[in-house]
Amino acid sequence: MKQQSLLNQSTTVQSILDWLHTFGKSSDTGNTRLLYSNDWMNAQNALFDQFQQSSLTPYFDDVGNLFGRVEGINRNHKEAILVGSHIDTVIDGGKYDGVYGIAAAWIAVRELLEQHGRPLQTIEVASLCEEEGSRFPLTFWGSGNITNKHKQIVSTEIVDHEDVSLYSAMIEKGFGLGRYPQPYRGDLSHFLEVHIEQGCVLEQDHQDIGIVQSIVGQRRYTIVVNGKSDHAGTTPMNRRVDAMESAASLMTSFTQIARRLDDDLVSTVGKIEAKPNTPNVICHQVTFSLDVRHPSVTTLELYEQEMNTLIAQLEREKRVNVHVNRWTNVKPVNMDASLVELAYKESERLNYQTKFMHSGAGHDAQIFGTHCKTSLLFVPSKDGISHSPKEFTAEHHLRAGVDVLKSMIYTLAYEKRSSYHDESSLS
Amino acid sequence: MKQQSLLNQSTTVQSILDWLHTFGKSSDTGNTRLLYSNDWMNAQNALFDQFQQSSLTPYFDDVGNLFGRVEGINRNHKEAILVGSHIDTVIDGGKYDGVYGIAAAWIAVRELLEQHGRPLQTIEVASLCEEEGSRFPLTFWGSGNITNKHKQIVSTEIVDHEDVSLYSAMIEKGFGLGRYPQPYRGDLSHFLEVHIEQGCVLEQDHQDIGIVQSIVGQRRYTIVVNGKSDHAGTTPMNRRVDAMESAASLMTSFTQIARRLDDDLVSTVGKIEAKPNTPNVICHQVTFSLDVRHPSVTTLELYEQEMNTLIAQLEREKRVNVHVNRWTNVKPVNMDASLVELAYKESERLNYQTKFMHSGAGHDAQIFGTHCKTSLLFVPSKDGISHSPKEFTAEHHLRAGVDVLKSMIYTLAYEKRSSYHDESSLS
Repeated sequence: MKQQSLLNQSTTVQSILDWLHTFGKSSDTGNTRLLYSNDWMNAQNALFDQFQQSSLTPYFDDVGNLFGRVEGINRNHKEAILVGSHIDTVIDGGKYDGVYGIAAAWIAVRELLEQHGRPLQTIEVASLCEEEGSRFPLTFWGSGNITNKHKQIVSTEIVDHEDVSLYSAMIEKGFGLGRYPQPYRGDLSHFLEVHIEQGCVLEQDHQDIGIVQSIVGQRRYTIVVNGKSDHAGTTPMNRRVDAMESAASLMTSFTQIARRLDDDLVSTVGKIEAKPNTPNVICHQVTFSLDVRHPSVTTLELYEQEMNTLIAQLEREKRVNVHVNRWTNVKPVNMDASLVELAYKESERLNYQTKFMHSGAGHDAQIFGTHCKTSLLFVPSKDGISHSPKEFTAEHHLRAGVDVLKSMIYTLAYEKRSSYHDESSLS
Repeated sequence: MKQQSLLNQSTTVQSILDWLHTFGKSSDTGNTRLLYSNDWMNAQNALFDQFQQSSLTPYFDDVGNLFGRVEGINRNHKEAILVGSHIDTVIDGGKYDGVYGIAAAWIAVRELLEQHGRPLQTIEVASLCEEEGSRFPLTFWGSGNITNKHKQIVSTEIVDHEDVSLYSAMIEKGFGLGRYPQPYRGDLSHFLEVHIEQGCVLEQDHQDIGIVQSIVGQRRYTIVVNGKSDHAGTTPMNRRVDAMESAASLMTSFTQIARRLDDDLVSTVGKIEAKPNTPNVICHQVTFSLDVRHPSVTTLELYEQEMNTLIAQLEREKRVNVHVNRWTNVKPVNMDASLVELAYKESERLNYQTKFMHSGAGHDAQIFGTHCKTSLLFVPSKDGISHSPKEFTAEHHLRAGVDVLKSMIYTLAYEKRSSYHDESSLS
């Protein structure tokens, strides 16, 4: 039976998301669609069929990224504009994260085709295979392969919690065998992504569109404070080496640094463990996590310097021993300045309330950001909630994202000479 | 076979503790002797025999407290001086906690008998059945019964972790059936206890004897800080309601209050739990314990007032909600002032380095303290360690405790008119 196209003039963005929700439904509004699972494969295959119904030529690459290609009229222009996001979810995630960017790209391109016919430059809608890292301890498997950033990864050595390797899971779904084109793409001029904000800023500030200027750098630390266990009653304050007292003092100071240094700096202690963790015994060890993010490496470096100074001072004053392990250091990635400008211009023209911002979370755009001209747009998330079945964005906001994305694609792919292209790539 | 007395002129205190260690040995230096266990019963029976060998008339009461009685010559003096401590231990505890007070009392009384014959006033050495609360969720079962403070306790309702009730365990060892005298004692003029310090003060200050002026009051709280879970990257500092940030700030302030208000005030956060306890998610709830101790109710009250003011301020400033549950409120107990003076006089006379102090831990003396004239002496604990197989006190310190205790008993029981007795109880 030939598939019916889901897209018509009355199709809402929400209806597409509701349709995608049927693949890997974990609850009324929850989704679990893990890389190379059956639900994941069914979703990609269904999108493959739908792209075909919408005159987007569908094809997979050899890691399972799905593309819907519209060939440009201008044959001299070899590069393609990629628009999309990821199909995978966290466990029991929401209906919006990732898939919204795919639906928005698909709707935008389909409407452009109907209204303006074929573009000058080739456009591809992308349903990237993986971003979240929910099944395997690895993120950005889709974009990392397209940009060659994952070429060092040995997929036989990465296993899920059932000890299935990334390689076996991929083979099982028919990828990784050379049946499809290799994932690396040297032919991309742009990557455009629209995503839910996953934060509360747009909603609280009554904005429709967030234009991301950069995706923050992240440093993650594990901090171990070593003191001495003693009796909580018989050890006077001035004779104790209380790991909890010192940990609390560090946590308080770390937050103060973040609040003082820069409004865009965030610092979070999300996890803590105390030993022996008994009400009437002074802790001999407290271990806590520290997650620090900012769009500038200089600020992250300043934070770390102040942090180390404070630790050294505490070690002297309180006789504790503090061990710091920085286990993540991801550099900030700037979005393309000309695309930030274009997004702002189109958003204003369409009368959407617009705010420049930084992305505090990671997105595929951060992988593409150092590979080609990249743009990332946000729409509001209700109550800032994400990675939860409670994720929600209203239709008018979903549509706002589509509208701005569509205008940007039009400028890039349909207008004859665009200042948003590299000189070298112009025909 | 008739038991041989362990006590002779060359007996060290340590040798008695080593002998008691054989009952419920958990390791080379560890002891587990829980209330009404076989090891506990064997220890009490062995002491019964030994008291008999030392001319101390042994008898049990109906909860299993063991006494070794030396009848006073003065028949008009009906009251007895009780000297001792508890026989039970924590799980894998040390060789000193509790039993040292029994051994010291036994040795002191035996030496007095040899050197001075029968006393004027009756003396009893006590091996109290329970103090630690290690088997049943109840402390001071021995002293609480002697002083009638446990008369409300329904022993059938209190169970150990194997669901054996306190009542059944007691019956199983032959107590609680009326075979022995009822535990309540209205005939006590004094209770004297010597104990290891379980803290580091005497050792660090090079003191031999600590004379306890009071046993601190204790207040224990569980504090729950409720905030809001959000994404650690996408939620700016000024829009988050971070339960961990507020908890850390409270913990830091609470310690500062303790350090500022009074040198004898101690405040400890020993236990903490965060939710969801994930590095990249802002905590929506942090629960922590707070243990506050001081010899004066006024100071404990002041601390609590400052604590509540701080919490109210934090709730306003940080939009968190803080719930405080005070689940323990034990009043401080003063030791008898005339006995503090006597202990000091005797300790000085014997050329021991002596320090007045408060007991930050609970002891049987705190139960007797509001029942009869009570004295508590400390000897140093190596590195302040207790409730551990690493507990250690050197023989010269163990002996110092025996010497001072012995001098005090001599004054009270052998001297004709003692100012250390109540007028009413003098013959």
